Amino acid sequence: MLFFEGSEKKIEVVLQPGQPSLRQLEREYWQQVVAKANATILSSVHNEECDAYLLSESSLFVWEDRFLMLTCGTTTLMDAVVSFLEQFPADSLAMLSYQRKNEYQSHLQKSSFEQDVTALQQQIEGVGYQLGYLDGHHNYIYHLDRPYQPREDDATLELLMYHINGDTAQYLRSDNQTLEGIRQRLNWEALLPGFLLDDFLFEPFGYSMNAIKGDRYATMHITPQENSSYVSFETNLEGEAAALVLNALLKTLQPDSYDLISFNQQLQLDHQPGIICVDQATQPLSCGYTMRFSHYLKPPSAERSADRLSL
Amino acid sequence: MLFFEGSEKKIEVVLQPGQPSLRQLEREYWQQVVAKANATILSSVHNEECDAYLLSESSLFVWEDRFLMLTCGTTTLMDAVVSFLEQFPADSLAMLSYQRKNEYQSHLQKSSFEQDVTALQQQIEGVGYQLGYLDGHHNYIYHLDRPYQPREDDATLELLMYHINGDTAQYLRSDNQTLEGIRQRLNWEALLPGFLLDDFLFEPFGYSMNAIKGDRYATMHITPQENSSYVSFETNLEGEAAALVLNALLKTLQPDSYDLISFNQQLQLDHQPGIICVDQATQPLSCGYTMRFSHYLKPPSAERSADRLSL
Repeated sequence: MLFFEGSEKKIEVVLQPGQPSLRQLEREYWQQVVAKANATILSSVHNEECDAYLLSESSLFVWEDRFLMLTCGTTTLMDAVVSFLEQFPADSLAMLSYQRKNEYQSHLQKSSFEQDVTALQQQIEGVGYQLGYLDGHHNYIYHLDRPYQPREDDATLELLMYHINGDTAQYLRSDNQTLEGIRQRLNWEALLPGFLLDDFLFEPFGYSMNAIKGDRYATMHITPQENSSYVSFETNLEGEAAALVLNALLKTLQPDSYDLISFNQQLQLDHQPGIICVDQATQPLSCGYTMRFSHYLKPPSAERSADRLSL
Repeated sequence: MLFFEGSEKKIEVVLQPGQPSLRQLEREYWQQVVAKANATILSSVHNEECDAYLLSESSLFVWEDRFLMLTCGTTTLMDAVVSFLEQFPADSLAMLSYQRKNEYQSHLQKSSFEQDVTALQQQIEGVGYQLGYLDGHHNYIYHLDRPYQPREDDATLELLMYHINGDTAQYLRSDNQTLEGIRQRLNWEALLPGFLLDDFLFEPFGYSMNAIKGDRYATMHITPQENSSYVSFETNLEGEAAALVLNALLKTLQPDSYDLISFNQQLQLDHQPGIICVDQATQPLSCGYTMRFSHYLKPPSAERSADRLSL
């Protein structure tokens, strides 16, 4: 079994007003931050508001006063965060949040969430939560414990999909896939109109995509491996525009199980028939966001057999 | 948060006919096997068929031609198995199976299932399976790949309960619990009539129980900690007698989530209202058992809040 840990670690930082622009830091600066996490920059796109870097393991988005970095696999994102905080210490920050979800194979990770937080606590004082049961899907967050007032349009959605099915899932695992073929099947042109797109196809498979339009972003990472498939989609799109994309992805990728995590946004998804919600939690955070977590799944309609392991 | 990993590792071995009796090995022998797993013998009960040892971390049952050992926490059961196999190599075995379930915090374990199997493969040739989705509850098994014909009354049930609720759960977490109080609440006298009982109360809490009657056994291990509570019950009782105990435990402990794993036995549980089956798998094994796995849970009826972490 070819295993890759798709589950992301995520850091989001907003600077205090009066700090230098993060976009004016050299590309070399971000290269070095990304390298601390054991990732590299593959490509980038830029518009008037945002620099979007596609990484060997996920993504980095940089705005004037904030940045967002997602990394997967066995990356060491906290090392990148600690390195960033050496240059931008606690009193230059307006908001910091660090998120990590339960992994498929947490014993293969180089650090645990607890260890990450211990490193972070050398620099900032924060609060941590677990949303979702420990024995099921759950999401950890640790954030700077300091009042912050997010802008009205500062809302985030994370859709984390497991065990994808159907034609597109098959295509994503096939030998003959192309970037063009994936873009068409995921229908970016219709779902992200006017967005500047940057995407990458990994060998033997795996797909990453960044898209930006003004200060809006979308990012997707696909680990299609049978038995451990995982697809994450994240955006700060809101309302109808967000619902359009998320519902289309659920329909196209047909995940057996998925989590919806949101910050300052409540979205009703069009769940496919048979899908039920098995866990949910809501938590107002002192950093100004209300975080919501829901875990959905499709109970099996027929008896399944075991997966024989390649040992 | 006081965390203890209740999830067990389990080894079951049956010797070929003609091998020396395992019961005639000295207690010192088993003490040394148990020590390899980083556990100790706390107490024991004996009848004409079986020696049942209560361990600092779970249980060991020894019959004439077979033994069964369960250990939890961060024990190294595979080290005990490897030590046993030095004295009883592959050609003395009729059956061997090693089971491990997904852990709450697998990164705290001293070895992974894959590493355990690698150690085992130095001694035996086997086959491995995963029952249940990788992103949900699942159970791993690796067994000797050799035809074996279990006796007709050789059937096993494992009921693994998470997030227990209600009065008994409260009592198990309280300061004023006693062995007698736990026995009464779990109603052993009615559920396991005629069984010889051996149980132990850990500090600050935690309860272990072994019970034997003829060649039948039952064992239970309770880790009551709020937010990570876990209770396992295992028995080779069959039919009505088994159903009586399992249904009573579900009613008393009110777990939000549980797995039923069975070998050569199919049992219909009386699920409490609101409980649904979210995964199931059936696998005939070449060692003569049909293994069944089901994961049940109760979707939340109200919105839950997050668990604040003690970091």
